[in-house]
Amino acid sequence: MKQFISVNDASNIDQLVQLALRYKADPLCDRNKGQGKRLGCLFLNPSLRTRLSTQVAAQQLGMEVIVLNAAADGWKLEFGEGVIMNGDTVEHVKDAAPILGQYVDILALRSFPELKDRETDYAEHIIHQFIRYAGVPVISLETATLHPLQSLADLITISETLQANAKHYQNRKPKIVLSWAPHIRSIPQCVANSFSQWINAWQQAEFVITHPAGWELHEAYTAGATIETDQQKALEGADFVYVKNWSSYRSYGEIHKEASDWMLTTRKLAVTRQAKIMHCLPVRRNVELSDEVLDSPASLVQQQGGNRVWAAQAVLQSILNGTA
Amino acid sequence: MKQFISVNDASNIDQLVQLALRYKADPLCDRNKGQGKRLGCLFLNPSLRTRLSTQVAAQQLGMEVIVLNAAADGWKLEFGEGVIMNGDTVEHVKDAAPILGQYVDILALRSFPELKDRETDYAEHIIHQFIRYAGVPVISLETATLHPLQSLADLITISETLQANAKHYQNRKPKIVLSWAPHIRSIPQCVANSFSQWINAWQQAEFVITHPAGWELHEAYTAGATIETDQQKALEGADFVYVKNWSSYRSYGEIHKEASDWMLTTRKLAVTRQAKIMHCLPVRRNVELSDEVLDSPASLVQQQGGNRVWAAQAVLQSILNGTA
Amino acid sequence: MKQFISVNDASNIDQLVQLALRYKADPLCDRNKGQGKRLGCLFLNPSLRTRLSTQVAAQQLGMEVIVLNAAADGWKLEFGEGVIMNGDTVEHVKDAAPILGQYVDILALRSFPELKDRETDYAEHIIHQFIRYAGVPVISLETATLHPLQSLADLITISETLQANAKHYQNRKPKIVLSWAPHIRSIPQCVANSFSQWINAWQQAEFVITHPAGWELHEAYTAGATIETDQQKALEGADFVYVKNWSSYRSYGEIHKEASDWMLTTRKLAVTRQAKIMHCLPVRRNVELSDEVLDSPASLVQQQGGNRVWAAQAVLQSILNGTA
Repeated sequence: MKQFISVNDASNIDQLVQLALRYKADPLCDRNKGQGKRLGCLFLNPSLRTRLSTQVAAQQLGMEVIVLNAAADGWKLEFGEGVIMNGDTVEHVKDAAPILGQYVDILALRSFPELKDRETDYAEHIIHQFIRYAGVPVISLETATLHPLQSLADLITISETLQANAKHYQNRKPKIVLSWAPHIRSIPQCVANSFSQWINAWQQAEFVITHPAGWELHEAYTAGATIETDQQKALEGADFVYVKNWSSYRSYGEIHKEASDWMLTTRKLAVTRQAKIMHCLPVRRNVELSDEVLDSPASLVQQQGGNRVWAAQAVLQSILNGTA
Repeated sequence: MKQFISVNDASNIDQLVQLALRYKADPLCDRNKGQGKRLGCLFLNPSLRTRLSTQVAAQQLGMEVIVLNAAADGWKLEFGEGVIMNGDTVEHVKDAAPILGQYVDILALRSFPELKDRETDYAEHIIHQFIRYAGVPVISLETATLHPLQSLADLITISETLQANAKHYQNRKPKIVLSWAPHIRSIPQCVANSFSQWINAWQQAEFVITHPAGWELHEAYTAGATIETDQQKALEGADFVYVKNWSSYRSYGEIHKEASDWMLTTRKLAVTRQAKIMHCLPVRRNVELSDEVLDSPASLVQQQGGNRVWAAQAVLQSILNGTA
Repeated sequence: MKQFISVNDASNIDQLVQLALRYKADPLCDRNKGQGKRLGCLFLNPSLRTRLSTQVAAQQLGMEVIVLNAAADGWKLEFGEGVIMNGDTVEHVKDAAPILGQYVDILALRSFPELKDRETDYAEHIIHQFIRYAGVPVISLETATLHPLQSLADLITISETLQANAKHYQNRKPKIVLSWAPHIRSIPQCVANSFSQWINAWQQAEFVITHPAGWELHEAYTAGATIETDQQKALEGADFVYVKNWSSYRSYGEIHKEASDWMLTTRKLAVTRQAKIMHCLPVRRNVELSDEVLDSPASLVQQQGGNRVWAAQAVLQSILNGTA
């Protein structure tokens, strides 16, 4: 693996999932693979699970980790070409990235969208500039449009559930529903885009996306899925329900303010096949999902969060192998 | 040891002190005990000594450490049950804590009181929610009402002094005075509560607490000590004077604005038995204590700060043993 | 080496450069030298390259590193003697520094000038107070007036270039020009002071400093260099051009607002001997230097940034040896 910024960097999704599950069974089985290698984690935005799980994964491969919170510890970067830098950006990515690349063997980067201008966000200029200039493999810790480490952890979680219930799925594919949820803030589309991209690429599920009209995701990620604006109809027969808010892609960044009835509740789940519930966290309780759903045995949310470690470890190891 | 949030978690105070002194004599004697184990330090508030000494202690046991500054690196947590999360809290402790618990073997947490509502602060809801949901042993790095790692370091310091002057204490217990000091800000009661709790539990001293009327601490911590509002009378014959400000427990959070004469000075110490001076730091020089006292050979303040490492190391090791 | 705060702490500059180049050739050749030793990095101000390169260097010597961002993670320190601390400073360096010194084996410190009062900044009170009270060797990670790790990395870069082009320099010294550049903010003099101090102490170059009249540096650092206010004349025959802005030393902290013609461009370089271009970074593109110059093969800027690791590693090792 040369980089990890989308599903396209995973040549074989199932193999990557299996590698992750091997690490889950034996976290330290490759503890010397990364010895003398260093991971740099650059956060342009806050992070909890991604920050910690990536560090844990790297340590378990024997790597050193250095973390930089760009805003708090450093200064504001410039990403435009040819700019006269007489404003508030202090350093150009052209100058900063290659230096970081000299200090570390793998560079991991988190960069949120601004949710103001769609073209800018979807150009993914920031991570592409780092890829262009860093000179070392780059891992996305979530960018404007995608969150591949989350999606890999999601697929690990789904795979574990399918394996534990193999009988139920002998003659049919599982039905996975991505269900839009209400939220009070303008939230990126990246987790939903990325989950859609991975499930579509995986090709081992019946995949339905449900959301209010006007909250369609970009077709580049959803093509292949069934789109259904009737939530209840979408949930019928579901085996997995992935709950997630996103702001509008069409009317870019818009919050849907009259959609509180889209909150997932136990009552709505009656039409599913005792569906397992997924969410990437952080979750707004009793806004996106009810306490009752989140605290039920059907919730895979904690398992997803735990699987972030094994996803990161599998990706780091694949990159270490690729560059070895 | 299953957790470390108060003196009640220490089954044998003297043994814990002796373990700490063993580490002080030979810091790396257990350097492989924590191999493959990970300590997570979660700071909801700033920290200097606690942050560094705990990391040093963990490293000396061979543990990996990951640090999260919740406010700067992450986001605001919700601690209430059943809340509709449509406000400024981004993630519920119910969701965050178990994930952290999957990433680390021991979770250490700092959380200050708000000093607005006494019931809220004294309920210690935050650390209790973490204990409830994290699924791994929890260590207090100072909470709203207690600071046990500080108190253990204080007792290590007192024990060292007693051992070095064993002759003086053959026929009598040392007299320890906790002396309230002036301050310009509203300061938690936790260090004073905790010191009182530990000295009372230790039962090897004559213990006097002196403060202006109205600045009484909660009896849960002070019961067993003599309360004396005449500072000079309290200091008579003291072997140790622990100087510390705290805001009012009764008139919760109130600053005493006309108490500058409570500042400890060399002159006041004349009635002591050449008392040793203690303070947990940070200290407001020439407000709480005079430069003259702090810079005198009688000051144990630097020794206390150094002993923070050995206190943390003894606690981490006791927990590693308990969970092994 | 007992400390590293200026060129005066380097008893033999060339030996230090050679040690750094040995680490560049074989980063892990001393990987056990620092085992069981701990470096503490205290940042009173932001840092990117220095922060990361110093951590990398320490890790490559087998040292543990702990990092404290004083402002964000901790609180404001007091540096004045005898102060009544009833203001916004929470802890005195007299109390904090010796504790830090108990936690680490080497203390590294970054502290910017305020650029308000020259006497205060040039007294270098902050690092001197740390040296006075820490009780362990102190390394400057850039202070108000000097940035010795940068200057050492600069000399490593110059030495590499000279070695690679040894024939050109058989009969003459290289000509090095420090060329003032425009900037929109008030920037410390420290990099320019420090570079001047090191090149003068090194004594193996013809050294010219060029800047607008009124932007003279302190003679303590420049004595020995030729000062030339005609930039074009200064550049004639240059082998190396070090570009850097600094605010006025005379009219302390003043920005030169009508000096955009001091920006270094390809056209200006025609009079040089195909000069190599240096800058410490961060650089304001198309303000200090043109894109064309920075992106040309003549630029050593990336090499300088990479060499920061080997500079730090050589200094850490020299201090470890000195204290062993």
